Amino acid sequence: MSKKDIDIGLLGLGVVGSGIAKVLLNKADSLAEQLGASLVLKKVLVRQVNKQRTVKLEPRQLTTHPEEVLTAPEIDIVIEVIGGEYPATEYIKQAILHDKHIVTANKEVIAKHGYELVSLAKEHNVDLRYEASVGSGIPLIRVCQQDLAANDILAIYAILNGTTNYILTRMSQEGLDFSTALKEAQELGYAEANPANDIEGTDAAYKLAILAGLAFHTIVDTQDIYCEGISRLQTQDFSYAKEFGYAIKLLAIAKREANSIEMRVHPVFIPEDSQLAKVDGVYNAIQVESDLAGNLVFYGQGAGALRASSAIMADVLAIARNICHGAISVPKAPINQKLALKPMSSIKTRYYFRLSVADRPGVLAQISEVLGHNSISISSVIQKESDLESQTAVLVIMTHPAEEKSVQKALKEIRQLTVVNEVSNFIRVEG
Amino acid sequence: MSKKDIDIGLLGLGVVGSGIAKVLLNKADSLAEQLGASLVLKKVLVRQVNKQRTVKLEPRQLTTHPEEVLTAPEIDIVIEVIGGEYPATEYIKQAILHDKHIVTANKEVIAKHGYELVSLAKEHNVDLRYEASVGSGIPLIRVCQQDLAANDILAIYAILNGTTNYILTRMSQEGLDFSTALKEAQELGYAEANPANDIEGTDAAYKLAILAGLAFHTIVDTQDIYCEGISRLQTQDFSYAKEFGYAIKLLAIAKREANSIEMRVHPVFIPEDSQLAKVDGVYNAIQVESDLAGNLVFYGQGAGALRASSAIMADVLAIARNICHGAISVPKAPINQKLALKPMSSIKTRYYFRLSVADRPGVLAQISEVLGHNSISISSVIQKESDLESQTAVLVIMTHPAEEKSVQKALKEIRQLTVVNEVSNFIRVEG
Repeated sequence: MSKKDIDIGLLGLGVVGSGIAKVLLNKADSLAEQLGASLVLKKVLVRQVNKQRTVKLEPRQLTTHPEEVLTAPEIDIVIEVIGGEYPATEYIKQAILHDKHIVTANKEVIAKHGYELVSLAKEHNVDLRYEASVGSGIPLIRVCQQDLAANDILAIYAILNGTTNYILTRMSQEGLDFSTALKEAQELGYAEANPANDIEGTDAAYKLAILAGLAFHTIVDTQDIYCEGISRLQTQDFSYAKEFGYAIKLLAIAKREANSIEMRVHPVFIPEDSQLAKVDGVYNAIQVESDLAGNLVFYGQGAGALRASSAIMADVLAIARNICHGAISVPKAPINQKLALKPMSSIKTRYYFRLSVADRPGVLAQISEVLGHNSISISSVIQKESDLESQTAVLVIMTHPAEEKSVQKALKEIRQLTVVNEVSNFIRVEG
Repeated sequence: MSKKDIDIGLLGLGVVGSGIAKVLLNKADSLAEQLGASLVLKKVLVRQVNKQRTVKLEPRQLTTHPEEVLTAPEIDIVIEVIGGEYPATEYIKQAILHDKHIVTANKEVIAKHGYELVSLAKEHNVDLRYEASVGSGIPLIRVCQQDLAANDILAIYAILNGTTNYILTRMSQEGLDFSTALKEAQELGYAEANPANDIEGTDAAYKLAILAGLAFHTIVDTQDIYCEGISRLQTQDFSYAKEFGYAIKLLAIAKREANSIEMRVHPVFIPEDSQLAKVDGVYNAIQVESDLAGNLVFYGQGAGALRASSAIMADVLAIARNICHGAISVPKAPINQKLALKPMSSIKTRYYFRLSVADRPGVLAQISEVLGHNSISISSVIQKESDLESQTAVLVIMTHPAEEKSVQKALKEIRQLTVVNEVSNFIRVEG
């Protein structure tokens, strides 16, 4: 093992970047002891050199010129924590072209450009790691790549977005409505001022694309992931979920059947005694079903500078260890070509419907008839909350497994029944 | 990457060994595709060559002579799944001396001889991996070694034995007594005819020794782990636990404080809304508290041939990948010398006592007085189930944090009070 310095370039000195810089400074001795080499933070790309910072760096370590990190010959590993698609993607490419190993926490870049970047890295004989991109400090990427390498992965069910899980927890436990819970999350710093990426499920879809690609050895196009957010959930849905013995979670789901895969992100009823139902607040949890290891669940906080720095430093140490051993590890491109994507209309699951209907005899018969001729069978029904004044009632229906397209057709027909005021909500049911 | 065969020797063809052989046969193509080399099961050590088996191997693959596996020049990797301390330890040593990489599932060997074997492997420039030894298919060993490499691990709280967790779950959910639940576990094949290793906590202590060694970079002597089994738990304890909002689990606990560690395996009250409290049946779960990644939980089935084969094959593939890349990875010996062990008498936690006392005035005063002068303060008390005939009552006490030695002294004094018939049980409380 050769004793040497391993020089690191850092792109970005925001919350996560500062976290990394602090770990590199504060843990320098113990990391060097474990590695047999020193990790040196050579250069950091910032927007502004002169600025008050929480981490003490010398002026010569800071630069506003990307090429001083991306092309400097002495730099071995480039850590990218700028976030966002551009310029991060271009920076990573340029660094690879200059034979730097890459560690990134950027889910958007990896979800959208992972295959291209992995191929480029392979070509240039450099490593590209992205453990922090999914679940932050929860080990998932290497678990899929290495620990489960002998497994056929059958399905992934995951809570991948802490912001939405916090909002759903507050709605469920405190009966808050969506906008109040969102506002609270924003005040606590859990949700951004523009929360669209989180609450519409986009963030979870990026992460699912990365995990599903690894799990199924395939190339996933994020556009292919059906995506539905949490904003249309109402307080009543949580009450009925509880009554039926369920929790409501925003799940990212990927399943493999023979040569096709299904991938979707949407709110789901899951049994309240399942492991995922018990995941509250900003926590993430990922359930993996595999042929050998069986049913595994990984649980932890999926956000925050400290959490991300755990995963990023694990990647840096893995690359540094290889450098010390003179070994070269390059990322693997997926083996299989693109697997057929099961269209959303063909998925089969159970459903929860909440309807506002006229409070008079024969209503249930008409609705049952529509469901029946669409081959949807009912597993339970609750009729409630008759409003004497408006003569309306709430009808809640849970179905047996049915095909999405039949359900969509039935809902259209139900909406047209004169006895139905509205289909207030419908939510898919898993487990 | 050089295309070549990687030859494997297998020690043992019992349940786990057969599982490994099946994976190597059934998944040969996909493993070869992923690796760029074929994994060939060259030789298997069995007790008897001629025997009906569930896995189809050719007679030339089987041998009753250990040296045909341990010393054969063509064999690259030796997988040990015999179990037990001897002759497994000697076999592993011999294989290392003949420059074989080692994969073992043997918790007893690694817990007792890990340091020696790691040092020997390092000396001979071979790899030694043991992912299956703790939590079976749940990734833990590599998680501690690599994914959490930048973390200071602060504590481990773990359910590491599926047999005892099954028994505790049945006692808690169905009100079974210990011996009925044990009998049931034996009938289902979850507990062995001689269940001592499981129910006395020895199995969990071996696994804790391995995890704590990795987590704290130290050498752990299994003898140093305080170990208490589950046989003295009674149905009433589960009822009171529920009443106070707790579950009872057999936990393996390791904590680090500055330069000392505490390690113990014993039944514990844990809050019923904690992640570990929700782990039922034969499942295992490991909670790791660390400075960067925070609080992580890993959950899955910790036993069975399929589960073990997932972990063993991950190790085999990791070694095979290195062989293909011409890289050498040798196991790391712990950096730190032995950390001071905190004696059990100095640990500080909360306690649950269940006492049978005389049903007359002043009893609680006498007991409180004993606790008070031992600096133990009471957090709650329940007095119940007065038995009119014998004039006895049950007194259940939960304390605030207190030192173990004060508690032991107080219990001794309480036993001597004439108003106390017996100290029916005492259980430590965590979380």
